[in-house]
Amino acid sequence: MQIALDEARKASLLDEVPVGAVIVHGETGEIISATHNEMVRNANPTAHAEMLAIQRACQILGKSRLVDYDIYVTLEPCPMCAQAISFARFRRLHFGAYDPKAGGVEHGPRIFHSSSCFHQPEVIGGIEEVPCGEILKEFFQSKR
Amino acid sequence: MQIALDEARKASLLDEVPVGAVIVHGETGEIISATHNEMVRNANPTAHAEMLAIQRACQILGKSRLVDYDIYVTLEPCPMCAQAISFARFRRLHFGAYDPKAGGVEHGPRIFHSSSCFHQPEVIGGIEEVPCGEILKEFFQSKR
Repeated sequence: MQIALDEARKASLLDEVPVGAVIVHGETGEIISATHNEMVRNANPTAHAEMLAIQRACQILGKSRLVDYDIYVTLEPCPMCAQAISFARFRRLHFGAYDPKAGGVEHGPRIFHSSSCFHQPEVIGGIEEVPCGEILKEFFQSKR
Repeated sequence: MQIALDEARKASLLDEVPVGAVIVHGETGEIISATHNEMVRNANPTAHAEMLAIQRACQILGKSRLVDYDIYVTLEPCPMCAQAISFARFRRLHFGAYDPKAGGVEHGPRIFHSSSCFHQPEVIGGIEEVPCGEILKEFFQSKR
Protein backbone atom coordinates (compact mmCIF):
# COMPACT_ATOMS: atom_id res chain seq x y z
CA MET A 1 0.00 0.00 0.00
CA GLN A 2 3.02 2.29 0.49
CA ILE A 3 3.80 1.96 -3.22
CA ALA A 4 0.18 2.73 -4.09
CA LEU A 5 0.45 5.82 -1.84
CA ASP A 6 3.62 6.87 -3.67
CA GLU A 7 1.66 6.58 -6.93
CA ALA A 8 -1.12 8.72 -5.45
CA ARG A 9 1.47 11.37 -4.49
CA LYS A 10 2.81 11.36 -8.06
CA ALA A 11 -0.76 11.91 -9.34
CA SER A 12 -1.19 14.87 -7.00
CA LEU A 13 1.93 16.56 -8.40
CA LEU A 14 0.45 16.13 -11.91
CA ASP A 15 -2.85 17.70 -10.80
CA GLU A 16 -4.60 14.33 -11.06
CA VAL A 17 -6.97 13.12 -8.34
CA PRO A 18 -4.49 11.29 -6.07
CA VAL A 19 -5.40 7.63 -6.23
CA GLY A 20 -2.80 4.90 -6.76
CA ALA A 21 -3.04 1.18 -7.57
CA VAL A 22 -0.56 -1.68 -7.48
CA ILE A 23 -0.94 -5.26 -8.72
CA VAL A 24 1.21 -7.92 -7.07
CA HIS A 25 1.52 -11.68 -7.28
CA GLY A 26 -0.37 -13.02 -4.27
CA GLU A 27 2.33 -15.51 -3.23
CA THR A 28 5.65 -13.98 -4.29
CA GLY A 29 4.68 -10.31 -3.81
CA GLU A 30 6.23 -9.47 -7.19
CA ILE A 31 4.93 -6.12 -8.44
CA ILE A 32 3.46 -6.33 -11.94
CA SER A 33 2.10 -2.80 -12.38
CA ALA A 34 1.89 0.42 -10.34
CA THR A 35 -0.25 3.27 -11.64
CA HIS A 36 -2.11 6.42 -10.70
CA ASN A 37 -5.11 8.25 -12.14
CA GLU A 38 -4.45 9.73 -15.58
CA MET A 39 -7.87 11.20 -16.32
CA VAL A 40 -6.60 14.71 -16.95
CA ARG A 41 -3.50 13.70 -18.89
CA ASN A 42 -5.44 11.29 -21.12
CA ALA A 43 -8.62 13.40 -21.27
CA ASN A 44 -10.32 10.12 -20.46
CA PRO A 45 -12.88 9.66 -17.67
CA THR A 46 -12.15 5.92 -17.54
CA ALA A 47 -8.39 6.32 -16.87
CA HIS A 48 -8.68 5.42 -13.19
CA ALA A 49 -5.59 3.96 -11.51
CA GLU A 50 -7.19 0.51 -11.25
CA MET A 51 -8.19 0.35 -14.94
CA LEU A 52 -4.67 1.31 -16.02
CA ALA A 53 -3.08 -1.15 -13.59
CA ILE A 54 -5.27 -3.98 -14.94
CA GLN A 55 -4.60 -3.06 -18.59
CA ARG A 56 -0.84 -2.94 -17.99
CA ALA A 57 -0.72 -6.16 -15.95
CA CYS A 58 -2.72 -8.05 -18.62
CA GLN A 59 -0.42 -6.68 -21.31
CA ILE A 60 2.74 -7.64 -19.39
CA LEU A 61 1.47 -11.10 -18.46
CA GLY A 62 -0.28 -11.73 -21.80
CA LYS A 63 -3.45 -12.95 -20.13
CA SER A 64 -6.80 -11.52 -19.12
CA ARG A 65 -7.37 -13.46 -15.90
CA LEU A 66 -5.22 -12.47 -12.95
CA VAL A 67 -6.33 -15.29 -10.67
CA ASP A 68 -3.10 -15.47 -8.66
CA TYR A 69 -2.84 -11.71 -8.19
CA ASP A 70 -3.92 -9.12 -5.63
CA ILE A 71 -4.69 -5.45 -6.24
CA TYR A 72 -3.97 -2.64 -3.76
CA VAL A 73 -5.81 0.68 -4.25
CA THR A 74 -5.59 3.77 -2.02
CA LEU A 75 -9.35 4.44 -2.37
CA GLU A 76 -12.40 2.17 -2.43
CA PRO A 77 -12.92 1.40 -6.13
CA CYS A 78 -15.86 2.97 -7.98
CA PRO A 79 -18.47 0.67 -9.61
CA MET A 80 -16.60 0.69 -12.96
CA CYS A 81 -13.33 -0.40 -11.37
CA ALA A 82 -15.00 -2.87 -9.01
CA GLN A 83 -16.58 -4.62 -12.02
CA ALA A 84 -13.22 -4.59 -13.85
CA ILE A 85 -11.59 -6.17 -10.75
CA SER A 86 -14.23 -8.90 -10.86
CA PHE A 87 -13.75 -9.46 -14.63
CA ALA A 88 -9.97 -9.78 -14.09
CA ARG A 89 -10.60 -12.52 -11.48
CA PHE A 90 -8.36 -11.06 -8.77
CA ARG A 91 -7.75 -13.19 -5.71
CA ARG A 92 -7.93 -10.26 -3.31
CA LEU A 93 -8.66 -6.51 -3.24
CA HIS A 94 -6.99 -4.36 -0.58
CA PHE A 95 -8.10 -0.74 -0.42
CA GLY A 96 -7.28 2.26 1.79
CA ALA A 97 -9.88 4.96 2.33
CA TYR A 98 -13.60 4.24 2.14
CA ASP A 99 -15.61 6.27 -0.38
CA PRO A 100 -19.22 6.62 0.84
CA LYS A 101 -20.16 8.96 -2.04
CA ALA A 102 -18.75 7.29 -5.14
CA GLY A 103 -17.47 3.89 -3.98
CA GLY A 104 -18.91 0.73 -5.50
CA VAL A 105 -17.58 -2.00 -3.21
CA GLU A 106 -18.93 -1.23 0.29
CA HIS A 107 -21.18 1.61 -0.93
CA GLY A 108 -23.56 2.44 -3.80
CA PRO A 109 -24.30 -0.61 -5.96
CA ARG A 110 -21.94 -2.89 -3.93
CA ILE A 111 -20.88 -4.55 -7.17
CA PHE A 112 -19.53 -7.83 -5.73
CA HIS A 113 -22.91 -8.52 -4.11
CA SER A 114 -24.89 -7.95 -7.32
CA SER A 115 -26.58 -10.78 -9.23
CA SER A 116 -24.59 -9.73 -12.33
CA CYS A 117 -21.23 -10.31 -10.64
CA PHE A 118 -19.75 -13.77 -11.24
CA HIS A 119 -16.44 -13.46 -9.38
CA GLN A 120 -16.01 -11.93 -5.93
CA PRO A 121 -12.47 -11.29 -4.75
CA GLU A 122 -11.72 -11.32 -1.05
CA VAL A 123 -12.00 -7.66 0.10
CA ILE A 124 -9.91 -6.00 2.80
CA GLY A 125 -10.73 -2.29 3.28
CA GLY A 126 -9.29 0.42 5.52
CA ILE A 127 -5.57 -0.39 5.05
CA GLU A 128 -3.55 2.79 5.73
CA GLU A 129 -6.93 4.49 5.69
CA VAL A 130 -5.70 7.77 7.26
CA PRO A 131 -2.85 8.65 4.87
CA CYS A 132 -4.86 7.37 1.89
CA GLY A 133 -7.72 9.69 2.84
CA GLU A 134 -5.51 12.64 3.85
CA ILE A 135 -3.85 12.92 0.47
CA LEU A 136 -7.28 13.19 -1.19
CA LYS A 137 -8.54 15.70 1.40
CA GLU A 138 -5.47 17.90 0.92
CA PHE A 139 -5.81 17.72 -2.86
CA PHE A 140 -9.45 18.83 -2.86
CA GLN A 141 -8.84 21.51 -0.21
CA SER A 142 -6.09 23.02 -2.38
CA LYS A 143 -8.63 23.24 -5.23
CA ARG A 144 -11.09 25.41 -3.31
CA MET B 1 -27.47 0.79 -34.64
CA GLN B 2 -26.78 -0.78 -38.06
CA ILE B 3 -23.17 0.41 -37.79
CA ALA B 4 -22.91 -1.02 -34.28
CA LEU B 5 -24.28 -4.31 -35.66
CA ASP B 6 -21.64 -4.25 -38.41
CA GLU B 7 -19.01 -3.84 -35.68
CA ALA B 8 -20.50 -6.80 -33.79
CA ARG B 9 -20.25 -8.89 -36.99
CA LYS B 10 -16.59 -7.93 -37.36
CA ALA B 11 -16.00 -9.04 -33.75
CA SER B 12 -17.62 -12.40 -34.45
CA LEU B 13 -15.25 -13.02 -37.39
CA LEU B 14 -12.32 -12.32 -35.03
CA ASP B 15 -13.70 -14.79 -32.46
CA GLU B 16 -14.57 -11.95 -30.09
CA VAL B 17 -17.94 -11.82 -28.31
CA PRO B 18 -20.00 -9.92 -30.92
CA VAL B 19 -20.88 -6.60 -29.34
CA GLY B 20 -20.47 -3.30 -31.18
CA ALA B 21 -20.62 0.34 -30.06
CA VAL B 22 -20.86 3.64 -31.93
CA ILE B 23 -20.58 7.19 -30.60
CA VAL B 24 -22.31 9.94 -32.58
CA HIS B 25 -22.92 13.64 -32.13
CA GLY B 26 -26.48 13.96 -30.83
CA GLU B 27 -27.50 16.74 -33.22
CA THR B 28 -25.46 16.24 -36.38
CA GLY B 29 -25.25 12.43 -36.26
CA GLU B 30 -21.53 12.61 -37.03
CA ILE B 31 -19.83 9.33 -36.10
CA ILE B 32 -16.87 9.81 -33.77
CA SER B 33 -15.91 6.21 -33.02
CA ALA B 34 -17.15 2.72 -33.91
CA THR B 35 -15.69 -0.26 -32.07
CA HIS B 36 -16.22 -3.86 -31.12
CA ASN B 37 -15.07 -6.05 -28.24
CA GLU B 38 -11.32 -6.69 -28.28
CA MET B 39 -10.99 -8.73 -25.11
CA VAL B 40 -9.30 -11.71 -26.80
CA ARG B 41 -7.06 -9.65 -29.08
CA ASN B 42 -5.89 -7.39 -26.24
CA ALA B 43 -5.91 -10.12 -23.55
CA ASN B 44 -7.78 -7.53 -21.53
CA PRO B 45 -11.07 -8.19 -19.72
CA THR B 46 -11.91 -4.46 -19.78
CA ALA B 47 -11.68 -4.10 -23.58
CA HIS B 48 -15.45 -3.99 -24.07
CA ALA B 49 -16.75 -2.18 -27.17
CA GLU B 50 -18.11 0.72 -25.08
CA MET B 51 -14.84 1.30 -23.18
CA LEU B 52 -12.88 1.39 -26.43
CA ALA B 53 -15.44 3.68 -28.10
CA ILE B 54 -15.26 6.11 -25.16
CA GLN B 55 -11.44 6.05 -25.05
CA ARG B 56 -11.21 6.71 -28.81
CA ALA B 57 -13.86 9.44 -28.82
CA CYS B 58 -12.16 11.27 -25.93
CA GLN B 59 -8.82 10.96 -27.68
CA ILE B 60 -10.22 12.28 -30.98
CA LEU B 61 -12.16 15.12 -29.39
CA GLY B 62 -9.49 15.92 -26.77
CA LYS B 63 -12.01 16.05 -23.95
CA SER B 64 -13.33 13.73 -21.27
CA ARG B 65 -16.96 14.86 -21.18
CA LEU B 66 -19.10 13.87 -24.14
CA VAL B 67 -22.16 15.90 -23.15
CA ASP B 68 -23.45 16.44 -26.71
CA TYR B 69 -22.96 12.82 -27.74
CA ASP B 70 -25.02 9.65 -27.82
CA ILE B 71 -23.75 6.07 -27.62
CA TYR B 72 -25.30 3.09 -29.42
CA VAL B 73 -24.46 -0.42 -28.17
CA THR B 74 -25.81 -3.73 -29.49
CA LEU B 75 -26.10 -5.17 -25.96
CA GLU B 76 -27.19 -3.69 -22.64
CA PRO B 77 -23.95 -2.39 -21.06
CA CYS B 78 -22.44 -4.24 -18.10
CA PRO B 79 -21.96 -2.34 -14.78
CA MET B 80 -18.39 -1.33 -15.73
CA CYS B 81 -19.47 0.18 -19.04
CA ALA B 82 -22.63 1.74 -17.58
CA GLN B 83 -20.51 3.59 -15.01
CA ALA B 84 -18.07 4.67 -17.75
CA ILE B 85 -21.04 5.99 -19.79
CA SER B 86 -22.12 8.01 -16.76
CA PHE B 87 -18.56 9.34 -16.17
CA ALA B 88 -18.37 10.42 -19.83
CA ARG B 89 -21.62 12.42 -19.40
CA PHE B 90 -23.39 11.03 -22.46
CA ARG B 91 -26.67 12.64 -23.42
CA ARG B 92 -28.31 9.37 -24.40
CA LEU B 93 -27.66 5.62 -24.39
CA HIS B 94 -29.36 3.46 -27.03
CA PHE B 95 -28.90 -0.27 -26.69
CA GLY B 96 -30.13 -3.35 -28.56
CA ALA B 97 -30.55 -6.64 -26.73
CA TYR B 98 -31.31 -6.78 -23.01
CA ASP B 99 -28.85 -8.73 -20.83
CA PRO B 100 -30.67 -10.10 -17.78
CA LYS B 101 -27.59 -12.04 -16.59
CA ALA B 102 -24.73 -9.54 -16.85
CA GLY B 103 -26.35 -6.21 -17.73
CA GLY B 104 -25.95 -3.26 -15.39
CA VAL B 105 -28.49 -0.75 -16.74
CA GLU B 106 -31.91 -2.45 -16.47
CA HIS B 107 -30.55 -5.45 -14.54
CA GLY B 108 -28.12 -6.28 -11.73
CA PRO B 109 -26.95 -3.13 -9.92
CA ARG B 110 -28.91 -0.78 -12.26
CA ILE B 111 -25.98 1.65 -12.14
CA PHE B 112 -27.84 4.81 -13.20
CA HIS B 113 -30.23 4.41 -10.26
CA SER B 114 -27.45 3.99 -7.69
CA SER B 115 -26.64 6.65 -5.08
CA SER B 116 -23.05 6.68 -6.38
CA CYS B 117 -24.10 7.70 -9.90
CA PHE B 118 -24.02 11.46 -10.52
CA HIS B 119 -25.05 11.59 -14.19
CA GLN B 120 -27.87 9.59 -15.72
CA PRO B 121 -28.12 9.58 -19.52
CA GLU B 122 -31.49 9.11 -21.15
CA VAL B 123 -31.81 5.34 -21.83
CA ILE B 124 -33.56 3.73 -24.80
CA GLY B 125 -33.31 -0.07 -24.81
CA GLY B 126 -34.52 -2.75 -27.23
CA ILE B 127 -33.51 -1.05 -30.52
CA GLU B 128 -33.01 -3.74 -33.18
CA GLU B 129 -33.27 -6.13 -30.27
CA VAL B 130 -33.75 -9.26 -32.44
CA PRO B 131 -30.68 -9.00 -34.72
CA CYS B 132 -28.55 -7.70 -31.83
CA GLY B 133 -29.51 -10.74 -29.76
CA GLU B 134 -29.35 -13.24 -32.66
CA ILE B 135 -25.71 -12.52 -33.45
CA LEU B 136 -24.79 -13.27 -29.82
CA LYS B 137 -26.93 -16.41 -29.74
CA GLU B 138 -25.33 -17.73 -32.94
CA PHE B 139 -21.85 -16.96 -31.63
CA PHE B 140 -22.33 -18.86 -28.38
CA GLN B 141 -24.12 -21.76 -30.13
CA SER B 142 -21.14 -22.15 -32.47
CA LYS B 143 -18.90 -22.48 -29.38
CA ARG B 144 -20.75 -25.46 -27.95
